Amino acid sequence: MSISLERIHQLDRQDPLADFKRRFALPEGVLYLDGNSLGAQPAGAREAVDGTLEQWRDELIKGWNQGWFDAPERLGDLMAPIIGARGGEVVITDNITLNLFKLLGYITGQCSNDRRVVLSEGGNFPTDGYIAQGFCRLSGHEHRFLPEGSELAEYLDGVAVVVLSQVNYRTGRLRDMAATTRLVHDHGAEVIWDLAHSAGALPVDLTGCGARYAVGCTYKYLNGGPGAPAFLYVHRDHQGRGWQPLSGWHGHAAPFAFDADYVPAGDITRFRTGTHSALIYSALEASLTMWAEVDMAALRDKSLALSELFRECLDDLLKAHGIEDLTPSPEERGSQVSLVDSEHGYAIVQALIARGVIGDYREPGLMRFGFTPLYLSYEDVWQAARHFREVIESGEYRESRFQVRCAVT
Amino acid sequence: MSISLERIHQLDRQDPLADFKRRFALPEGVLYLDGNSLGAQPAGAREAVDGTLEQWRDELIKGWNQGWFDAPERLGDLMAPIIGARGGEVVITDNITLNLFKLLGYITGQCSNDRRVVLSEGGNFPTDGYIAQGFCRLSGHEHRFLPEGSELAEYLDGVAVVVLSQVNYRTGRLRDMAATTRLVHDHGAEVIWDLAHSAGALPVDLTGCGARYAVGCTYKYLNGGPGAPAFLYVHRDHQGRGWQPLSGWHGHAAPFAFDADYVPAGDITRFRTGTHSALIYSALEASLTMWAEVDMAALRDKSLALSELFRECLDDLLKAHGIEDLTPSPEERGSQVSLVDSEHGYAIVQALIARGVIGDYREPGLMRFGFTPLYLSYEDVWQAARHFREVIESGEYRESRFQVRCAVT
Repeated sequence: MSISLERIHQLDRQDPLADFKRRFALPEGVLYLDGNSLGAQPAGAREAVDGTLEQWRDELIKGWNQGWFDAPERLGDLMAPIIGARGGEVVITDNITLNLFKLLGYITGQCSNDRRVVLSEGGNFPTDGYIAQGFCRLSGHEHRFLPEGSELAEYLDGVAVVVLSQVNYRTGRLRDMAATTRLVHDHGAEVIWDLAHSAGALPVDLTGCGARYAVGCTYKYLNGGPGAPAFLYVHRDHQGRGWQPLSGWHGHAAPFAFDADYVPAGDITRFRTGTHSALIYSALEASLTMWAEVDMAALRDKSLALSELFRECLDDLLKAHGIEDLTPSPEERGSQVSLVDSEHGYAIVQALIARGVIGDYREPGLMRFGFTPLYLSYEDVWQAARHFREVIESGEYRESRFQVRCAVT
Repeated sequence: MSISLERIHQLDRQDPLADFKRRFALPEGVLYLDGNSLGAQPAGAREAVDGTLEQWRDELIKGWNQGWFDAPERLGDLMAPIIGARGGEVVITDNITLNLFKLLGYITGQCSNDRRVVLSEGGNFPTDGYIAQGFCRLSGHEHRFLPEGSELAEYLDGVAVVVLSQVNYRTGRLRDMAATTRLVHDHGAEVIWDLAHSAGALPVDLTGCGARYAVGCTYKYLNGGPGAPAFLYVHRDHQGRGWQPLSGWHGHAAPFAFDADYVPAGDITRFRTGTHSALIYSALEASLTMWAEVDMAALRDKSLALSELFRECLDDLLKAHGIEDLTPSPEERGSQVSLVDSEHGYAIVQALIARGVIGDYREPGLMRFGFTPLYLSYEDVWQAARHFREVIESGEYRESRFQVRCAVT
């Protein structure tokens, strides 16, 4: 490849984030480029989970008064700086799908009757559209898609709320959150930002962008574990304005008064629903505590350097084999490289996985490679590119074992 | 007390469930009468959770193809026999509050327009009413309360669906599920059974009772861990009839096709939402595997024997001190004893906890003592009653340290 291993080692020696790699429990022989889908395990996660298991065993029901009950808000406050929010603006709860439903109900409940449209993005992660459709069927709102690549301004008439991803899950394309938020507000609508592919991948500034509502998950770049709970953000000036429709007892103003009628809590707590799995917050807390030490500007620099390195190593190969590179330019990129081979994409990813190079596959034809600066070295990326080259040039991916489909892709 | 310790030891020797106690990790010096709120830890839970942590560490994203993704249905099938359901009728997902919302939307979506009322029980666990209120605000249905102790038949006009608990969380009173289901269906309405205080506490026969819809939690009598995910049941003849409103990608007919529009899965899977916390299913799986060996008739016999023993040991004391015993007769009882002292209830429970006898307190004035036959011996109950007597007779509960309120009661 065009870049020497000697130069790569030099980059690793100069990397200000290099020490973080030791704070992850990484398996031997794996080059993990799928941290955009499920992050690696922080070294402290196991001890944290074991601690909660011991607490359940020994303290039993008393654990709810020993940090379990208020974990959604405590971890929300740990999460806040990572996304440019402030204390009391973030709660960790449920999953993105459910949190979107809550915000759709909360926002439309404040809208006048001439705004009846909920807009979601075509071509982006489908759960955002699915839940918008479920919401609209129940509430009587109208769901519309914003066609991929179209001008948002032309679709905002009559819109109450639009759900947008800051980073597209397929292409890795980054939206200008400040300009888009301003545009939506200027049209009298609201926007819910889905930060699933941006939180922990690049600096996010919800406050600076004037964003009022956001959701995101913690199991990708934020390393909270498989299916760790999601976050929900409401700007402090937009809290306390009404119900959210998934009104369970943990979101009540006085959950242990056991009153018959629901009265929403006055703060971010109202976005909680019923009882949460205390155990699962432990691993996430171990991770978020580590994240408090991360310099987000350095993270961004390394993220872009890693993805550029991968592309540079493969540029000639992709051209020669007709593999399309969807990856946007650095300033318009999240932290992933997206390649398309509609015929062989699935098999190429399977062949790479067999070599210990783990990326993922999304229909149709999309190979995604995520770059997580906390635990990927420059050499990891260089070696992954070398494997990619070998898989293609040898035709290894054509072996029949790489054509078998798994349930989860 | 009127019953000798010798007689108690004889009962323990004859107990066919006695061996199960060794399969729980119980703390020393604790008499735990709060398994109706958070069950004790199965001995296998830690190993199971550790296994999933290792799987996350070593297999990373591949874990989703190694049992994580289908855990909601796999554990649902393990759960089914415990509540008299069949394979494919139960899914483990989210919490009770959210599962009630799904079923309210699913059922009312099939109703004619002259049935616009959602009825929930007054005096029962409030989250069921709270979420019914949230649902009705959004959907335009009307929420009404069934007043505690009133005749259900008189409140069913115009009702689409009623949410009822099989066992009341305060009094422990057991409803006749078969007769009540028949009554509701005869009025052209549907009933969602909340089994939070019955699943694992007594034999439940959803099929035999003609029940079509149910929800419940797994962290009380079923020992799944703090906030373990809930279950949702739909009778096989009533599946596949439409959307549930919390339509996330895991409930899609083809979640990995990433289609733009939502199409619900044809089976119980449609009641899933977004990504679930894989880790938390491990502890529950360890527990449900153990539950497969439990003889539910023997469980019921012991449950009633334990609660009767507790009451018999305290009968004269309660009368002498004006403590009200709300506990229904054995045939109308779940697996708890409910005592009321509106002035001192909270302090009495705190004084008992200080002695290692853990029950819980619910406003107003309610002391709840749960009887979990798998890990409570007759002697445990006898000793707990002895402590109760000493706390009352000595006036120990009047100490100021027992008056301090915790956040979670």
